[in-house]
Amino acid sequence: MGPESDSLSGEDRLIARFFAPLARAPGALGLADDAALIAPPPDCELVLKADAIVGGVHFFVADDAGDVARKALRVNLSDLAAKGASPLGFLLSLALPATADEHWLAAFAEGLRADCAHYRCPLLGGDTVRTPGPTTVSVAVIGSVPKGRMVRRAGARPGDLVFVTGTIGDAALGLALRRGATWALDEALSAHLRARYTLPQPRLALIEALRAYASAAMDVSDGLIGDLAKLCRVSGVAAVVRAGRVPLSAAAARAVAADPAALEIVLTGGDDYEVLCTVPPGQADGFRAAAAAAGVAVSDIGTIEPGANVRCLDADGKAILFKRAAYSHF
Amino acid sequence: MGPESDSLSGEDRLIARFFAPLARAPGALGLADDAALIAPPPDCELVLKADAIVGGVHFFVADDAGDVARKALRVNLSDLAAKGASPLGFLLSLALPATADEHWLAAFAEGLRADCAHYRCPLLGGDTVRTPGPTTVSVAVIGSVPKGRMVRRAGARPGDLVFVTGTIGDAALGLALRRGATWALDEALSAHLRARYTLPQPRLALIEALRAYASAAMDVSDGLIGDLAKLCRVSGVAAVVRAGRVPLSAAAARAVAADPAALEIVLTGGDDYEVLCTVPPGQADGFRAAAAAAGVAVSDIGTIEPGANVRCLDADGKAILFKRAAYSHF
Repeated sequence: MGPESDSLSGEDRLIARFFAPLARAPGALGLADDAALIAPPPDCELVLKADAIVGGVHFFVADDAGDVARKALRVNLSDLAAKGASPLGFLLSLALPATADEHWLAAFAEGLRADCAHYRCPLLGGDTVRTPGPTTVSVAVIGSVPKGRMVRRAGARPGDLVFVTGTIGDAALGLALRRGATWALDEALSAHLRARYTLPQPRLALIEALRAYASAAMDVSDGLIGDLAKLCRVSGVAAVVRAGRVPLSAAAARAVAADPAALEIVLTGGDDYEVLCTVPPGQADGFRAAAAAAGVAVSDIGTIEPGANVRCLDADGKAILFKRAAYSHF
Repeated sequence: MGPESDSLSGEDRLIARFFAPLARAPGALGLADDAALIAPPPDCELVLKADAIVGGVHFFVADDAGDVARKALRVNLSDLAAKGASPLGFLLSLALPATADEHWLAAFAEGLRADCAHYRCPLLGGDTVRTPGPTTVSVAVIGSVPKGRMVRRAGARPGDLVFVTGTIGDAALGLALRRGATWALDEALSAHLRARYTLPQPRLALIEALRAYASAAMDVSDGLIGDLAKLCRVSGVAAVVRAGRVPLSAAAARAVAADPAALEIVLTGGDDYEVLCTVPPGQADGFRAAAAAAGVAVSDIGTIEPGANVRCLDADGKAILFKRAAYSHF
């Protein structure tokens, strides 16, 4: 063997420098083994989710690398939150173009490090590969719930109230702004909407309230109305949403006031990463109190009914018709 | 809501048509929830691995879509095998270019279905996204081992024998053939080498033998000598490999006979997806017998020594020097 024999390969060097410092969990084995090893918590079930984001599709190629890393992790944590699951850790598959230099990687790793710490979700393993295409960040997250307590999509019953967390539509409006839309918003309001697109806020603080009170839940990633339609379909129910009760940020309210057509973006655009859930009417006060105690704003926006389909009503009780119900890249 | 209100989005239709039929495990929830749910087996630990393959980097864009699917799953199963872990299931993140039409997807899903069944590794969940780049298939696999029994990389001790499964170098030679190399092989031998590149053979049949007898193990994906160097580094030992004992297929032996320079491709090329392990000398006969009972060929190719570094010796006991020890895309 020559002088190369004991040196690390390029990928190993990259992993040792940028990612091993994030992998302090014992089961990550310092990223120096083929796989990660974790002991499942006692009396728990495991909740698994994988979601990828692609440069030019789910984020802008010029976006801050740290924000890209955080978004990739957060869109997965948002699913765990909606299922009532606590994160145990995640695997990262990172496909990098030649333009991803050390500065990019350092910023990416620093963003990821901050979110690993904040959400107590350690990096357990993964791989890094070259691609002739755009940066592609695939995350697979593993979480745990007490046995039998995962909150399903398929649990909504007629009479249940429909709740959402936070505010709806900000991210889709923020994306529209980045693509050139304008609603005469001042810079602070515009910045708020853009930031909501760039960095989702997974509602992990709500997991205990969801497990205690929700009959069904999912995260809103492809648009409120379309995602509610999915929840209704698997639950075998219908829903009525009062558009006027859908919580809007000050910025989104201003945009809709300036241009009523923006309401369709709000209600059917993607990337909210809020929790949508249904709660039996007798449990609603308990849910509201638990959410308030957890510091998560929740709003009831409608009700579950027998039947199929989602109707969205305006202030006069008239059905609002949308051009499309949900965002899809396909 | 208009006529779209109860229709599935493009991604949902694609998942329902091509992937839901593969997700028959109860925990996959028919791919109709945000996440998968599994109960960890009692008294087990979980072994987790994620690895992605990219068109034009890890496979040829013109490769059969079914083979691409199977390779993506198998490279991950190969890691589980080396750790002594049984597959529980996997998550798939599939980034597709616009050229991936229904025929491509149908073939991809059929290849994946066959391997899910063969390796008893169900699809649990995942996502499908568009990419302006090449097809990128990210798999995250989850397996289980009896508590405390995962076979680590960091367990080799001086005196241990070094074993490999199967034959070494076929895939790297097959890749070289596809790139235009020629060693005057007949079509059957060439086809064997090409197939070894296209479709790895994860050695899951060996997991019980590895757990019972191996002091350390990893899968050979980046080249035998380089991967052995990694195992030695984390174990704090050195190794001596006898090149003449490294098991070669008839095709690889013919290539090396025609061109001695091909030996470097064999010993340092990637994509073998065989298991490399170390076994204490007193356990070697037991390991050989257990491997034979499992139907997996194993060969001892060298020994672990005190020190650092890997030396590879020819038939005369002289050190063979390589231009590079391991393959890296970086």
